Amino acid sequence: MKSNPEITFGTRIRKSPFFDSTIKWGCKAFTIYNKMYMPTYYKSFVEDYWSLVNDVTLWDVAGERQVEITGKDAEKFVEYITPRDISACKVGQCMYILLTEKDGGIVNDPVLLKLDENHFWLSIADSDVLLWCLGIASSNRFDVKLSEPDASPLSLQGPKSPDVMARVSGEWVKGLKFFNFKKSVINGIPVIIARSGWSGEPGFEIYLLDGSRGNELWEIIMEAGKDYKIAPACPSQINRVESGMLSYGSDMTLQENPYDVSLGKFVNIDKKADFLSKAALSNIKQKGILKEMVGVEIMEKTSDEFIRDHLPIYDEKNVVGKITSSVYSPRLKKNIGLAIINKENINSNNLRLEYSGKSIEIKISQLPFLRNK
Amino acid sequence: MKSNPEITFGTRIRKSPFFDSTIKWGCKAFTIYNKMYMPTYYKSFVEDYWSLVNDVTLWDVAGERQVEITGKDAEKFVEYITPRDISACKVGQCMYILLTEKDGGIVNDPVLLKLDENHFWLSIADSDVLLWCLGIASSNRFDVKLSEPDASPLSLQGPKSPDVMARVSGEWVKGLKFFNFKKSVINGIPVIIARSGWSGEPGFEIYLLDGSRGNELWEIIMEAGKDYKIAPACPSQINRVESGMLSYGSDMTLQENPYDVSLGKFVNIDKKADFLSKAALSNIKQKGILKEMVGVEIMEKTSDEFIRDHLPIYDEKNVVGKITSSVYSPRLKKNIGLAIINKENINSNNLRLEYSGKSIEIKISQLPFLRNK
Repeated sequence: MKSNPEITFGTRIRKSPFFDSTIKWGCKAFTIYNKMYMPTYYKSFVEDYWSLVNDVTLWDVAGERQVEITGKDAEKFVEYITPRDISACKVGQCMYILLTEKDGGIVNDPVLLKLDENHFWLSIADSDVLLWCLGIASSNRFDVKLSEPDASPLSLQGPKSPDVMARVSGEWVKGLKFFNFKKSVINGIPVIIARSGWSGEPGFEIYLLDGSRGNELWEIIMEAGKDYKIAPACPSQINRVESGMLSYGSDMTLQENPYDVSLGKFVNIDKKADFLSKAALSNIKQKGILKEMVGVEIMEKTSDEFIRDHLPIYDEKNVVGKITSSVYSPRLKKNIGLAIINKENINSNNLRLEYSGKSIEIKISQLPFLRNK
Repeated sequence: MKSNPEITFGTRIRKSPFFDSTIKWGCKAFTIYNKMYMPTYYKSFVEDYWSLVNDVTLWDVAGERQVEITGKDAEKFVEYITPRDISACKVGQCMYILLTEKDGGIVNDPVLLKLDENHFWLSIADSDVLLWCLGIASSNRFDVKLSEPDASPLSLQGPKSPDVMARVSGEWVKGLKFFNFKKSVINGIPVIIARSGWSGEPGFEIYLLDGSRGNELWEIIMEAGKDYKIAPACPSQINRVESGMLSYGSDMTLQENPYDVSLGKFVNIDKKADFLSKAALSNIKQKGILKEMVGVEIMEKTSDEFIRDHLPIYDEKNVVGKITSSVYSPRLKKNIGLAIINKENINSNNLRLEYSGKSIEIKISQLPFLRNK
């Protein structure tokens, strides 16, 4: 792996409550996520990946900040900002939702946690959802309070994660259903434990509720995981592309609407509650969906390098789409990626991309490429 | 200088139109600013700084994205989001403004450019101002269009910058007044040239208006600067702390109001136009201002390391403030910083901070510490 320039640490970017632990445990690279340093690998992208798919890994994902929504109109407000119908969401449940602007553009794709009636968290991807929500609330149409609570998620992912989680918090945790969560305490440290996570493996997210105790919580879990070959790791780009999981910023932005990226199933045009993007998304749906999110195989020699750019996809003549993420899959022994492509070109068998002066054949593929869970 | 972990490049974070040039010219470290990679040093923080204060430097600051506001209510909208009175701003002028939330918290501190009647750009610091503005506009109270134009600033800073700028764009540019700008063309590349920049030195900001021609523009300016010892560099933390210039995210956040950071002069409570934070800021002002932004000298042995954390300031007993930014000043041969401190403690002569287990004396100092321009 070619080494990159270094990352600069300063006071403009926040440190997570687990930052000291990530340095101590040998984190070699970072990115920035919601203005917080977020680790990207320890040993290497590929070694960390094998720990994830074979054993169990602990990730600092505190950069996935929470936006807390409370007040009399909290549910009405959440309904307003998402095209998904959240009325069936029960206390203790998570729901994957899209946040959409008036024109249908995607603002974020958070996990919604319903903590109580009219008490929600949005566990967000990388954009300032709090600012957007404050802007909407400035109209005074909603009686809500918006804030960022002291809540910082760790992610415990991999086939052995239920065993490690049970050692830390008791056997009950194995009975927690997917996308359900519970308040709990680990060695006196208040947490919320959710059965969720951004990988194709079984896993949990542990929301630390006391920012001063992050390094303590980290060590407790690493200690409990010893017998299961736990390794410190990070959201795995390899694993998530294999699993067909999208990343906000890479695979969708404010420029795409949910239909462009094949997430139309999270839009309920006819839901009871009013929502901001209703007219736009109805209109888009009626006119017909033009794009699709697909998997692609990149028919090129193996490489452990990410393709670091959004690369245009060509047919015989024209640009017909773009690769939004790509990786080398060690299990498939292939370069694979995610791409947004014009619907009319979906069956073309003459698609290619240009990279480093070469014309490389690509093939459309079913998603997910692979998934364990 | 101790080397940091590396930065990870991927498709989630955008590359600036000057990215390839910054790598080619030897950029050794990056941060992320408005979800775009932004260089932080080439030779070293200190060597780059000497080029800035003695000669001339070219910075990729494309991460300072523009938010474009047009439409019938564009001016009314800008008035609404800022507590500064912008009614006197003429076409071709820049104005430093604060954007403030309903409770007075600072959302951003952009430079406003008035391109035409009801046509503005906000040249923003590191927060999603576009999302906040979209949220506010969702109320339909304003007839405005909000977008991110294809405009990416380079910054040419240092005492020899007028000579270099004149070589590139003609002698007229030396007559451009501070915080004025003009549309122009450099070798057929459309730009806006402003007399401005985030340093204590003379300088210009050149807004590239064609994202496909960034590397070309970079080379033209580097070539023109040869005789003046031009060096590639970055926003200099050393120089800006010496100059008492604040950085959004470090020195002010949504948690601070303008008075907390001694920027009350950019608040006109009695301005004619209505604005979002009016009631809150009136109330805060009336109750009395509690905090102040000050310079501090840190009475500790020299070091070329930044203090990378917000460090609490103590008097005999209590936390009375925090250091928000700090650097070693090679000209003053001292560690200096910016700090938010309780007004009542401003004359205390027993202030200290705790760092690496040591109690270090600090002294309040006038701002700016130093300034060339």
